[in-house]
Amino acid sequence: MRSYKAEPGKKSHAVELETLPSFLLNHIVHKYHQVLQSKLRSSDISMLQMRVILTLHSHDRLTVGELCNFAIAEQPTMSRALDSLELRGLVRREMSESDSRLRLISLTEKGLAMHDEIRPVVLGLNDAMVADFGEEQRATFTRQLSAVLVNLGRM
Amino acid sequence: MRSYKAEPGKKSHAVELETLPSFLLNHIVHKYHQVLQSKLRSSDISMLQMRVILTLHSHDRLTVGELCNFAIAEQPTMSRALDSLELRGLVRREMSESDSRLRLISLTEKGLAMHDEIRPVVLGLNDAMVADFGEEQRATFTRQLSAVLVNLGRM
Repeated sequence: MRSYKAEPGKKSHAVELETLPSFLLNHIVHKYHQVLQSKLRSSDISMLQMRVILTLHSHDRLTVGELCNFAIAEQPTMSRALDSLELRGLVRREMSESDSRLRLISLTEKGLAMHDEIRPVVLGLNDAMVADFGEEQRATFTRQLSAVLVNLGRM
Repeated sequence: MRSYKAEPGKKSHAVELETLPSFLLNHIVHKYHQVLQSKLRSSDISMLQMRVILTLHSHDRLTVGELCNFAIAEQPTMSRALDSLELRGLVRREMSESDSRLRLISLTEKGLAMHDEIRPVVLGLNDAMVADFGEEQRATFTRQLSAVLVNLGRM
């Protein structure tokens, strides 16, 4: 099996670095955020706030810790994002009925409206990323990405 | 062709969000950085500094602007990373012979040694990400990631 490990003593070349999965993945995510941020300019929300809104729509009510995992942020950054979303009336924090120390976060009506505004933009950009892939290629791509995530989770 | 666009009026489900390429890509890159950062703890370099060192090794001498593109950072963040690398004696800045307004950045001997320390870790992690992929699957994965990057670049 071909390995990404360079042969000893062999000077690496630019082309080798640029075909490493990590190189491509980093550049894709960076460019994706650039494009999405520009498409969502009129909605005035950050990429993290966008992920929070999509995640809350899928999961209904989540703790801050769960949101950190699903929407990717450290707790202090997530808390600031939630403060800002709450201030704009897009999310609410409520005490959990089963554990009064827990706060559960959910979308307000205004948050649901914001979701409906940004979701088509996100889905459209996901479509555009793989515009020239056939159905089978899309399925392979998703399956491979999922496998990589599982592999990383085992480390 | 299957589209990521939800049918009108159909409530989306968590599972749909979690198979979106953008969701998987974001989580992969986040997890990759977490794992790599922990593996490189003894080298005491940031993820951006790691990318700068790998990029300079591949391209020899680059301007700050070129480094911003290849190693992914905005100019102020890149300048701070370079200040720190220069202070540690890992990179040098020299005046371009063809244009005295341009500074070219390259690795010092100490920077090359740091490169040789971190490169196997980066390549090993890239291998581990696709450990269960055959040669053909790896090639497909790289080709699909490159295609996605091209598609995003057109937007």
